[in-house]
Amino acid sequence: MSQPLVGIIMGSQSDLNVMSEAAEILEELKVPFELTIVSAHRTPKRMVNYAEKARSNGLKVIIAGAGGAAHLPGMVASMTSLPVIGVPVKSSNSIDGWDSILSILQMPAGVPVATVALNGAKNAGILAAQIVGSFNKEVAKTLDNYKNSLKMKVEESAKKIETQGWKGKIIGFKN
Amino acid sequence: MSQPLVGIIMGSQSDLNVMSEAAEILEELKVPFELTIVSAHRTPKRMVNYAEKARSNGLKVIIAGAGGAAHLPGMVASMTSLPVIGVPVKSSNSIDGWDSILSILQMPAGVPVATVALNGAKNAGILAAQIVGSFNKEVAKTLDNYKNSLKMKVEESAKKIETQGWKGKIIGFKN
Amino acid sequence: MSQPLVGIIMGSQSDLNVMSEAAEILEELKVPFELTIVSAHRTPKRMVNYAEKARSNGLKVIIAGAGGAAHLPGMVASMTSLPVIGVPVKSSNSIDGWDSILSILQMPAGVPVATVALNGAKNAGILAAQIVGSFNKEVAKTLDNYKNSLKMKVEESAKKIETQGWKGKIIGFKN
Amino acid sequence: MSQPLVGIIMGSQSDLNVMSEAAEILEELKVPFELTIVSAHRTPKRMVNYAEKARSNGLKVIIAGAGGAAHLPGMVASMTSLPVIGVPVKSSNSIDGWDSILSILQMPAGVPVATVALNGAKNAGILAAQIVGSFNKEVAKTLDNYKNSLKMKVEESAKKIETQGWKGKIIGFKN
Amino acid sequence: MSQPLVGIIMGSQSDLNVMSEAAEILEELKVPFELTIVSAHRTPKRMVNYAEKARSNGLKVIIAGAGGAAHLPGMVASMTSLPVIGVPVKSSNSIDGWDSILSILQMPAGVPVATVALNGAKNAGILAAQIVGSFNKEVAKTLDNYKNSLKMKVEESAKKIETQGWKGKIIGFKN
Amino acid sequence: MSQPLVGIIMGSQSDLNVMSEAAEILEELKVPFELTIVSAHRTPKRMVNYAEKARSNGLKVIIAGAGGAAHLPGMVASMTSLPVIGVPVKSSNSIDGWDSILSILQMPAGVPVATVALNGAKNAGILAAQIVGSFNKEVAKTLDNYKNSLKMKVEESAKKIETQGWKGKIIGFKN
Amino acid sequence: MSQPLVGIIMGSQSDLNVMSEAAEILEELKVPFELTIVSAHRTPKRMVNYAEKARSNGLKVIIAGAGGAAHLPGMVASMTSLPVIGVPVKSSNSIDGWDSILSILQMPAGVPVATVALNGAKNAGILAAQIVGSFNKEVAKTLDNYKNSLKMKVEESAKKIETQGWKGKIIGFKN
Amino acid sequence: MSQPLVGIIMGSQSDLNVMSEAAEILEELKVPFELTIVSAHRTPKRMVNYAEKARSNGLKVIIAGAGGAAHLPGMVASMTSLPVIGVPVKSSNSIDGWDSILSILQMPAGVPVATVALNGAKNAGILAAQIVGSFNKEVAKTLDNYKNSLKMKVEESAKKIETQGWKGKIIGFKN
Repeated sequence: MSQPLVGIIMGSQSDLNVMSEAAEILEELKVPFELTIVSAHRTPKRMVNYAEKARSNGLKVIIAGAGGAAHLPGMVASMTSLPVIGVPVKSSNSIDGWDSILSILQMPAGVPVATVALNGAKNAGILAAQIVGSFNKEVAKTLDNYKNSLKMKVEESAKKIETQGWKGKIIGFKN
Repeated sequence: MSQPLVGIIMGSQSDLNVMSEAAEILEELKVPFELTIVSAHRTPKRMVNYAEKARSNGLKVIIAGAGGAAHLPGMVASMTSLPVIGVPVKSSNSIDGWDSILSILQMPAGVPVATVALNGAKNAGILAAQIVGSFNKEVAKTLDNYKNSLKMKVEESAKKIETQGWKGKIIGFKN
Repeated sequence: MSQPLVGIIMGSQSDLNVMSEAAEILEELKVPFELTIVSAHRTPKRMVNYAEKARSNGLKVIIAGAGGAAHLPGMVASMTSLPVIGVPVKSSNSIDGWDSILSILQMPAGVPVATVALNGAKNAGILAAQIVGSFNKEVAKTLDNYKNSLKMKVEESAKKIETQGWKGKIIGFKN
Repeated sequence: MSQPLVGIIMGSQSDLNVMSEAAEILEELKVPFELTIVSAHRTPKRMVNYAEKARSNGLKVIIAGAGGAAHLPGMVASMTSLPVIGVPVKSSNSIDGWDSILSILQMPAGVPVATVALNGAKNAGILAAQIVGSFNKEVAKTLDNYKNSLKMKVEESAKKIETQGWKGKIIGFKN
Repeated sequence: MSQPLVGIIMGSQSDLNVMSEAAEILEELKVPFELTIVSAHRTPKRMVNYAEKARSNGLKVIIAGAGGAAHLPGMVASMTSLPVIGVPVKSSNSIDGWDSILSILQMPAGVPVATVALNGAKNAGILAAQIVGSFNKEVAKTLDNYKNSLKMKVEESAKKIETQGWKGKIIGFKN
Repeated sequence: MSQPLVGIIMGSQSDLNVMSEAAEILEELKVPFELTIVSAHRTPKRMVNYAEKARSNGLKVIIAGAGGAAHLPGMVASMTSLPVIGVPVKSSNSIDGWDSILSILQMPAGVPVATVALNGAKNAGILAAQIVGSFNKEVAKTLDNYKNSLKMKVEESAKKIETQGWKGKIIGFKN
Repeated sequence: MSQPLVGIIMGSQSDLNVMSEAAEILEELKVPFELTIVSAHRTPKRMVNYAEKARSNGLKVIIAGAGGAAHLPGMVASMTSLPVIGVPVKSSNSIDGWDSILSILQMPAGVPVATVALNGAKNAGILAAQIVGSFNKEVAKTLDNYKNSLKMKVEESAKKIETQGWKGKIIGFKN
Repeated sequence: MSQPLVGIIMGSQSDLNVMSEAAEILEELKVPFELTIVSAHRTPKRMVNYAEKARSNGLKVIIAGAGGAAHLPGMVASMTSLPVIGVPVKSSNSIDGWDSILSILQMPAGVPVATVALNGAKNAGILAAQIVGSFNKEVAKTLDNYKNSLKMKVEESAKKIETQGWKGKIIGFKN
């Protein structure tokens, strides 16, 4: 794989179930990435190091996922001027995800985090690709194709219902 | 001003109070932008037109702000593969901002919106600049300088408190 | 079946589990309808087309269901002056349904959506029939009979409890 | 004024500030209506009487507004098969409006209430007109004109900003 | 059983799982009661009748349980000046119980409902007994004995832990 | 005044603004009461003493109001078997009243508190009178008269609107 | 075991599942403790006794866990000036834990409770050890070792992912 | 002043209004402290430095206040094993304080923060004193006196009400 443009990090190995969706879609969209574990609360020095070297390491975007009092995305954003995408993870110790969402979203003026939906790692990957695609025509084209494939899947399932009726069991596509 | 790289849109003129902060910080960070009003619910065709032409018009990022059932950011994101930053606005008809936040943040898989804090238009502007700065060294440098100025303001006010004490009235800086 | 008076649409095939209850009750109440999939975020053009042709296609009411950041009901309402009934769906990517509810309910002045309870597709069907029934005596009569049948079921189960006691297992009716 | 087609009721005179917007827009849209006070909790018999006679009195739609534990819309809906539009009112004894919203929206299967946004009396009036307009071409046309006027106001304010800039004070239109 | 002093009603047979706990504790506390189903939304006339005759039928307290937009307790309270205890039921169509709680608790000035915890039918029964016990020494004594038995169960389980340790499996008592 | 039947207590003098409404309505309904300050957190011994002597002091009902983490109603209920009515007070240190409501309402099985609406001290007074009125015909009659006066006020304001129109300024009655 | 420095109490034996984690980590950190059951609502006198004797019994910190309307931590804090750590327990009768959190956290000025996360008994144990460790070098050293072990576990799992890839199944460590 | 035992830090000078209450009560309780500004997001290095040197600088407890996505308390706790007290501040950019509370309270296992009520800086100061007082008899005695003064103020205001009545205006004491 060529030089990673996107860095995917998460606070704990238990976040990998959710966060691997970011990696999968980046593979599909052919945007090179790296993935590892960086804990704001258990490895703060490792986090400082990661954030400070991100730009010189060639990264263009960082995706950071965490649950509960999720400080990783915001703290990384405080130490780099690269765009940081935050993924609130509904971990076992989370209150229905509200804690993760609010502690990632509500950053103070000066230090933005681009927050996506709860457990929205797939969208984080697509957003990272869109950022790269703003300055890279090939990625932009891949994204347009992806967008088109989403449209076609909806049209296909609409056609099935319209012709076969809504009562029978319809073999669906993953939302 | 040179070719706009960032498009700032909002659902209603009443959002301008909040959204003008995005424009101000982009001016300060020297990233060219355009600003206008596009309502998802009152001018849906205008919105379709805006979104579809955004990339060919040279935009790299779109910032969209809206309140209440805020559909503008998500709908624009559905019609372009440029990165879209959503600003939840706490408008007069909003329930403490929760409606704006959730209807921007919780986009389905395939169509991300980079959501910032409630009324976080300033951060939306900085995030847009960071996206541009990932591929533009000059903007990156401006951002690093801006980050540094934030740090110095904190240090300055810390020094004031440490030397003059916390009881007197301290002439502050805007948060 | 005669000319459909009610159009049932939903954002994704995965919403069919919930939304089919609207179709079932309309069948029972003998109000002709059509049902298909229209995604605000994946097929925005298809949505524009559906909304704009709804009235000339003979529809009197549209029922639109969606989950998460649910933009379909509001966006359809922005492009037709037919009454639009919105069904918040508690999809897997929803935060306990709050996102779906608020992004459907909190529409700005000028563009109403008639929102029903979370997963309330059955009530959406009844409401659509009530709208038709306001101008159609036969449907009104069917609705009065339906209302009466609800009453009789409660009275029947009350009688069972009063005569057989509350401790034994009572064979219930679906709520 | 001709025979009222829409009945506007509210739980208390203190709701009139909010609910009069329903009356004003129905006047503008030329749909005849009546307006009075009916309290579910203080005049339950009056409410029963109002609901039961609504259809024979010629009403096609009922708009009911109430705050706090807002039972009026749902109770009226339990005693008529006319469509009932519920307006959650953020009264002084309400918890940020959540109580009003949930006690109107979350009706059980069989008894729908068409709920609009918090304090959304204007939208309740428009929705009532849309229901009438589904079966009355003149009202439908008035609604299309109204929709068009909303569009033109947005376009006008967009033009102002685009030509005069976003920094000066712009004389706005009411949202 | 002697003349019922407490009337237990619920909106639907599906509430019986929860509401039977009120009946069980009243049996245990030897306070005579009756139990039946009365739906505010499906049998409004039956509800009016029940509420109006409650006092002359010899009841001293009414316990009313309902889920979702729970109007039964408040509507009964509007038609009798007996104390009404409301039990918010977390039914399948409820949003985590918030709708049930708020639509029972937030009654307007003039018409109180004595609300207990979500699914708190047992406490509703105890509260009803306490009301009776304020004017009946025998019931008061039974309640004091019950209170004492709660205390003894806690002390017993505390003793077990203190002597046998907290690590082994302790055979508990129902909370 | 004769022997108090209702004891009104509150956690802090700052709650008196809200809690005095309970006293006023009890005066109006001619139910004798006493009123004082008892803090669960600052005078726990005083609270124990108050609760334990309440019944022998002749009280039939206790009304306890508190804000924030409101422990007074529940703790008093743990030490007497008299019915305790809890009034959640929206004090300055409260989070929109949610903390007060939940820490009063959600009592464990065995120890009920009859919770009324946020700041609902007036309803607490009425509820206390209703409890007394269940066993006292005179109070019951006063309550029926009070209920009737509420009805008449609504009818009067309805008549005003129906005859004088909804547009003029109407001299209202306190809700 | 030597003289207990930390007292762990909980409202009910059913809280032991959660609260035993506090005991386990204190064992691991070699801080002596005692553990028992004290119910604010069922054994108020036992609670008064426990709180008042805590300091003279040699305790330095009290950990109190409770669910629902959780009064135990705050009431104990009202009767001792030892630091009290409150653990909100998500018991079966809790509304997603919000009631437990708010009734522990939102204590009035003068009576603090050191609140930890929902079900955060492990952190309560660590916090108690940290308080002891502020004045005891040995405990402080044990804590630093513990902190280091957390860091090493993250680094180890990061290394696994970086070398073995994120796709295979990785044998994790408990979060 | 002697060697500070408590370090008070806050994210921004705008938090001083709230956080100065911690300083004031520590002065009153005669516990030496220091106070300055440390921003997690604008001066991350300063924060690392502060946290790492806290113990060797002689501090026994750290009080950290912050608003919105409040990362300061948790991040400091990740870099020291001293007890850290977190004060959620309801800053202007906060959503009713929920973001501040959840991002401080919901720390993952291993890194506790002792959270106090929203804006509860006074209680943070008292809690810090209680921690010191666990190992310092003089501070413990001062705390007992303080607790007693709270009790006497309540008793005094209770006496006023009992003798002068609840209707007149009573000159209160600050809650």
